[in-house]
Amino acid sequence: MAGMGAYDELIELQRRLHVLESVGELLAWDQETMMPAGGIEHRSRQMSLLAGLAHERATDPKIGELLSACEDDGLGTGPSGSDDRAPSANVRELRRRYDRLTKLPAALVSELAETTSLAQHEWARARERSDFGRFRPWLEKLVRLVRRKAECIGSPEGGEPWDALVDAYEFGARAADLRVLFAPLRERLSALIDELRTRGTRPDRAFNAVKLPIDRQEAFVRFVTERMGFDYARGRLDRSAHPFCSGTHPGDVRITTRFRDDLMCDALGSTMHEAGHGIYEQGLPPEHAGTPLGEAVSLGIHESQSRLWENHVGRSLAFWRWCQPQLGRFFGSALDAFDVERAYRAVNVVEPSLIRVEADEATYSLHVMVRFEIELDLVRGELEVADVPARWNALYRDYLGVEVPDDRQGCLQDVHWSCGLFGYFPTYALGNLYAAQLFAAAERAIPDLTEQFARGEFAALAAWLGEHVHAHGMRYPAGELCRRATGAELGAEAYLSHLSDKLRGVYRC
Amino acid sequence: MAGMGAYDELIELQRRLHVLESVGELLAWDQETMMPAGGIEHRSRQMSLLAGLAHERATDPKIGELLSACEDDGLGTGPSGSDDRAPSANVRELRRRYDRLTKLPAALVSELAETTSLAQHEWARARERSDFGRFRPWLEKLVRLVRRKAECIGSPEGGEPWDALVDAYEFGARAADLRVLFAPLRERLSALIDELRTRGTRPDRAFNAVKLPIDRQEAFVRFVTERMGFDYARGRLDRSAHPFCSGTHPGDVRITTRFRDDLMCDALGSTMHEAGHGIYEQGLPPEHAGTPLGEAVSLGIHESQSRLWENHVGRSLAFWRWCQPQLGRFFGSALDAFDVERAYRAVNVVEPSLIRVEADEATYSLHVMVRFEIELDLVRGELEVADVPARWNALYRDYLGVEVPDDRQGCLQDVHWSCGLFGYFPTYALGNLYAAQLFAAAERAIPDLTEQFARGEFAALAAWLGEHVHAHGMRYPAGELCRRATGAELGAEAYLSHLSDKLRGVYRC
Repeated sequence: MAGMGAYDELIELQRRLHVLESVGELLAWDQETMMPAGGIEHRSRQMSLLAGLAHERATDPKIGELLSACEDDGLGTGPSGSDDRAPSANVRELRRRYDRLTKLPAALVSELAETTSLAQHEWARARERSDFGRFRPWLEKLVRLVRRKAECIGSPEGGEPWDALVDAYEFGARAADLRVLFAPLRERLSALIDELRTRGTRPDRAFNAVKLPIDRQEAFVRFVTERMGFDYARGRLDRSAHPFCSGTHPGDVRITTRFRDDLMCDALGSTMHEAGHGIYEQGLPPEHAGTPLGEAVSLGIHESQSRLWENHVGRSLAFWRWCQPQLGRFFGSALDAFDVERAYRAVNVVEPSLIRVEADEATYSLHVMVRFEIELDLVRGELEVADVPARWNALYRDYLGVEVPDDRQGCLQDVHWSCGLFGYFPTYALGNLYAAQLFAAAERAIPDLTEQFARGEFAALAAWLGEHVHAHGMRYPAGELCRRATGAELGAEAYLSHLSDKLRGVYRC
Repeated sequence: MAGMGAYDELIELQRRLHVLESVGELLAWDQETMMPAGGIEHRSRQMSLLAGLAHERATDPKIGELLSACEDDGLGTGPSGSDDRAPSANVRELRRRYDRLTKLPAALVSELAETTSLAQHEWARARERSDFGRFRPWLEKLVRLVRRKAECIGSPEGGEPWDALVDAYEFGARAADLRVLFAPLRERLSALIDELRTRGTRPDRAFNAVKLPIDRQEAFVRFVTERMGFDYARGRLDRSAHPFCSGTHPGDVRITTRFRDDLMCDALGSTMHEAGHGIYEQGLPPEHAGTPLGEAVSLGIHESQSRLWENHVGRSLAFWRWCQPQLGRFFGSALDAFDVERAYRAVNVVEPSLIRVEADEATYSLHVMVRFEIELDLVRGELEVADVPARWNALYRDYLGVEVPDDRQGCLQDVHWSCGLFGYFPTYALGNLYAAQLFAAAERAIPDLTEQFARGEFAALAAWLGEHVHAHGMRYPAGELCRRATGAELGAEAYLSHLSDKLRGVYRC
């Protein structure tokens, strides 16, 4: 790369690294959607080889030299957000990654990789049998390893070890701030849920229980997501056990969903959710592909995009004004008994429950808070792994008012910890808050926004999100992006007003 | 890899190289079956990066050192077939590959890669417009490059430059031998085709023209290929513009097919063909996966497996005795008018035509011979690229008795030359000959073989092929494999007897 400046050379290396990583991403997608069962052994060899190659390249000392040379040229040295020129933003983010990766000893990286691979397997068995004892030694080992990881990375200034972990998913989020944000949110959500239960009229869910052929459901969700703006010339929709979005490049973004013949609205919500992620990935600036400026800024912002489409659009009355008259084309007369109002109310039932991924819009964040409290205490060393089930069950009683009958429906329900993902859960709740605040800003900017939904028009919303969120990639940290797009720090007000306004109407209280 | 012997170290490097190559294979499969149009640009970056990494590893001087150390230990130094111990066979084949690759200058490899990539694009445009002039400069450049490639590799002893090219696909095949094999074959095929035309009764094709829903066709071909022994727990069937088989490991083998509502038998034949390739890949010994002993021996033998299932099974009367009564389950009463005899005769129509991939069992090899003659003369420098269309058309007149109306249906129909694949075509005709000779041997070994087909039983055939072909991987060269499995050198007798016996019956002459 003779004759190139340090920055150009850095970006060239980074783009090549990204190409390699994107191959691993495709293999992961294929494994969940296409791969026959017999392929698993060879697939794990492929994944492990690629991960090794990518790690080798990501920690190449050459990158460290180039980063220093860029910084000597004044790129990326100011605090986050203070210098949003493309090269500065890229250098700042690449420096962060390089430091994170190179601070971890190779032995720890490989022990984490091996342990999480085995632990996922053990977790799946333990969950099947609702046998926490089987998973316990693995979780103990994982907690030790992630604490060691946090120690190697080092706590950010004024922060604690857990903060070093969350930085990988939501840079700059701090446990202390999240507690301040979550505590009043939890109280007000609980009060709202209580109010709906005691003073409201629970809508019936019959609309979502009608049996509908799966191929018609698939045609319907394709139609809706295409109308939202998910571009099928640059994406796909497939089926998998758990819905997800896999993006390797704005030109090739793949979402998945799942169907049950008697849960059409769940499939619709899931697919709109993943399409929201997908529209974000498709909207990242292609000229920056393979560099931080071409990547989603954080998991919280990513989740805001999925939640916004799933909840603020897909669970709105205006959306159902448009959507309900479309149903006949896909399902014949099967849903004729349900008018707009009945459909709209059915998708807005609130019901404290045991399983996070099945939770409704209002209770979802409470599920997240349970996990946040537990993992924080685990990382702090204030909770023994052996006490996780009891703590879990107590928090579910306290936050959601439900009794957990067994660990399968309790602390064994999520895969995350077995993958070593500590610091990840809170991003789901942040996604809800960002979604509400962004949507409120979009409504202010586009006064007839909901009228547009009622006509099946979503392009103005998509364009607003594209301009204020997608196009920036990682140019601004999440908090700064939020300030620029909404004019305010992230808070819980927009989310709480949205929920209470809507749900009081739905529950007629 | 301290403490490992040279052979173990060589195999370890080879297995890692294979894992990398298998990722490229999966990307190629995905590109043809799943990738949205918008993914092409990023995909080509992924493919090119992986190809570069694989080439770097395949030509690592370390491999040369390890090969020499193995050879010093007496592994793989005898002539092919003289030493069939696993390590010797692996070392022999890896030596061949390493020498081939390292003899090519990096500049030539990269010029070939770049030229074929552009030439394929130009070929597609030229074919669309039937404009040979557009493709001509590319073909001229490709001929120059492959002649240079043949020169770098060097002609095998007693051979000519084209032989250096064919060695990559069918090791040991020689242009001179093929001419000796093909000339009488061509005369006898022409005589047979003539006899059918002038003295036989052409069966009607109505059976294959009945319009049948594509989802039913798909269910039907899945049923048949599963019955053949293609294992869907270790494989998939998808759709693509051109059917193909992609195998990365015996546990993950993917075949594709295509459907038209009025060509069910074509889809059946294509799918059985690809499933034949797939059963070979699934039958390779998993303990040798990633090494030559775990790979198909040659393209000719690979094609023999597909042709055997497609033609010797799928176009046999016994097969239709079993198959015809199954049709109602898939197609209702749509095919009730066709009894076993009518179905069987319909799939055995012989008709000289213009397009190789649509050719019937008897004329197929003649299409191949046209290409063989032309590419041989191009590589020898005895034919100018500008004269290819005239030569092509003259050979079609001479061999098949058909007039070529335009280059789209003539010398522009195949992609191969634009990919730099010279020496590849004859393997298709060799596949026909190997198939017939192997099938005749299987019939001798399993006296009631066709009665088994009539009962829908194919396991004995699959097991015989597994034992005599699949399980060996590259332990023996193709010719030696043929001698061991059939007791004789490859010849045309079995193929000609099979065709003339069957087709005289079908044509009642």
